Amino acid sequence: MYNKRSFALGSKRSVIREIFEYSKARKAEIGENKVFDFSLGNPSVSPPKEVTEAIIDLVENTEPTALHGYTSAQGDAGVRQKIADSIKRRFGVDMPASLIYMTCGAAASLTITLKALFDKGDECIIFAPFFTEYTVFIENAEGVPVISMPEPETFQIDISDFESRITERTKAVIINSPNNPSGVVYTEATVKRVCQILEKKSREIGHAIYLIADEPYRELVYGNVFVPYIMNYYKNSIVCYSYSKALSLPGERIGYIAVSPQAECADEVYLAVCGAGRSLGYVCAPSLFQQVAARCVDTRVNISAYAENRDLIYNGLKRLGFECVKPDGAFYLFVKSPDGDAFSFYERAKKHELLIVPCDDFGVTGYVRIAYCVSKETITGSLAGFEKVAKEYGLI
Amino acid sequence: MYNKRSFALGSKRSVIREIFEYSKARKAEIGENKVFDFSLGNPSVSPPKEVTEAIIDLVENTEPTALHGYTSAQGDAGVRQKIADSIKRRFGVDMPASLIYMTCGAAASLTITLKALFDKGDECIIFAPFFTEYTVFIENAEGVPVISMPEPETFQIDISDFESRITERTKAVIINSPNNPSGVVYTEATVKRVCQILEKKSREIGHAIYLIADEPYRELVYGNVFVPYIMNYYKNSIVCYSYSKALSLPGERIGYIAVSPQAECADEVYLAVCGAGRSLGYVCAPSLFQQVAARCVDTRVNISAYAENRDLIYNGLKRLGFECVKPDGAFYLFVKSPDGDAFSFYERAKKHELLIVPCDDFGVTGYVRIAYCVSKETITGSLAGFEKVAKEYGLI
Repeated sequence: MYNKRSFALGSKRSVIREIFEYSKARKAEIGENKVFDFSLGNPSVSPPKEVTEAIIDLVENTEPTALHGYTSAQGDAGVRQKIADSIKRRFGVDMPASLIYMTCGAAASLTITLKALFDKGDECIIFAPFFTEYTVFIENAEGVPVISMPEPETFQIDISDFESRITERTKAVIINSPNNPSGVVYTEATVKRVCQILEKKSREIGHAIYLIADEPYRELVYGNVFVPYIMNYYKNSIVCYSYSKALSLPGERIGYIAVSPQAECADEVYLAVCGAGRSLGYVCAPSLFQQVAARCVDTRVNISAYAENRDLIYNGLKRLGFECVKPDGAFYLFVKSPDGDAFSFYERAKKHELLIVPCDDFGVTGYVRIAYCVSKETITGSLAGFEKVAKEYGLI
Repeated sequence: MYNKRSFALGSKRSVIREIFEYSKARKAEIGENKVFDFSLGNPSVSPPKEVTEAIIDLVENTEPTALHGYTSAQGDAGVRQKIADSIKRRFGVDMPASLIYMTCGAAASLTITLKALFDKGDECIIFAPFFTEYTVFIENAEGVPVISMPEPETFQIDISDFESRITERTKAVIINSPNNPSGVVYTEATVKRVCQILEKKSREIGHAIYLIADEPYRELVYGNVFVPYIMNYYKNSIVCYSYSKALSLPGERIGYIAVSPQAECADEVYLAVCGAGRSLGYVCAPSLFQQVAARCVDTRVNISAYAENRDLIYNGLKRLGFECVKPDGAFYLFVKSPDGDAFSFYERAKKHELLIVPCDDFGVTGYVRIAYCVSKETITGSLAGFEKVAKEYGLI
């Protein structure tokens, strides 16, 4: 009747989406402010005023059939030029607009990139903990996800584990820093070691291994933490960017793919990206928000609220005896279940109307994710519930 | 290095896109009004004022993190309800919101639907002439396109040819009416015969054959022509809709999939749609334009300019001796090459700065497509060039 894999993916939705749907129902039932929903990475900070101003100005002062019309499949030429210029300014990479491909957000950037590169059975290394949908996107490209386990305390990449995962079938490696769900930013030393190993292994196995940086959280870092730009460390690299978090526009689906100008056969890789986008039904990225992104290319949300939330929830939970890594970026806190069982932690918290995400599907067992992109009141209001949970676990 | 099929699709772009890119370059070279570009179905009629008003009102008066935030993967609940209500009002179908899935436009609607239904090797019947990307989308779902040839003069479906194409592997049939590229609307008699055959054949082969209606041009019909709504004729039907042409928003990528409530296992088919969307990287349809679509659910562009263009170009070309079917809908004219060679017709027209699309890739050889969604001046200005072409062919 229908495709079994599609049905399975549709009926067993991502755990995050499931909780998000439960949250909406529960809020309708007992009241919006009685449910403490930490499930979804839906930004709580408003888009910068420049975004709203750009939308209104564009709608009021641009010829509407041009504004809302098709752009080239790879994106509007002027938009791509502005983004290329910004990459050059910010990271010193000599990026041509001809290697920028506008997308419907980070998920599209990744599915298109993987479909562009992968043949059936090619392997893609991902670092636990990882965003759960990676395995879905890799499998859509007929690839095989290969999971590398992290350093246990810091959640940095375990270099020797990583090296041991590389085989002749390794086509690509995805890094996601700042990381969802741990909030960890990979250090420059880590990135350099990863790149050295990739260069050595590429030579050994006789073909390129691509390094794909999934960077929706690049602009969300706290306290001057440095996030290495991979094109400056490795030639066969591709950046998958999204404005979802940088401009608080996750529903608008706008981002891009940038193929490094240093990549071997960069132009051909880019054409494969164009072909993959076509095959997946992406005609062009939303035209109005392409223009908005171009106008706001160096604008970003005010992250001070996230920084404050991070301190509140991190300090609050540490005080109650929970174990977690202090996040340097993104808006997630990765918390160890006191009894090592992520699902029972999730269930116990839920009884106190705290919605947190059990993360076994993220490749590391025994942790939950708390998305602190919420109002300050949600965090302060939740601490009484967390205190009860801590007591139930005998932490205090 | 990269996936060969993706590269091939990216390097040999759709012929329409190729001409569109040539047109942009040529206009920059000799001047905007010297090139008569009939290549792309990019609406020339402005979006209704309700669209612009809705965008501004939403941006000015909605809480921005909600407006631009993620919606449920299947789309905002309120939006889906309004669309379901509209389908009920317009077509008398008892459509629940739970069977509506919001998409990034028609191409996404189709790729998702095909991925939801198809197993490797399943066959999809399409009727020539067809939108060229159908074969790309079917192949993305590992399906096999099977082409049914039309009645030669009317471009209606040739019923006996159609019936002969159905095999045990037939999973779905796509109809596109009003048709791109012919402008033909399938009559109710044609649709009824197609459905009768599908019912008989479904019973014979022992499984459902889905009827998929690709309907971006539903609202663009001239002179009270009736466009049958397939859910009223066949139970296992799925409508793939887009607002691109109805509201002149093709760049914004907004549409939906509606699974017929009469379909066998409709809820499961819908879940397969959800899974397919997830797998292809479609997180949600653009959130602002979901709301715009809901507010403008019964609004549509003023098609009088298209109607006028149709008469101008159709009468103009007929007068010059060209052969073409008078289109009842969409904004395309399908013209026979005087010497039977579509590509030479295209090349000859190009010398007079007339950009028309050779349609051999659309499944019928010897025709070109003229997209008359252009300014009236483009049409009137083009006729001198067409006259020269007619003379070269000895038509006048």
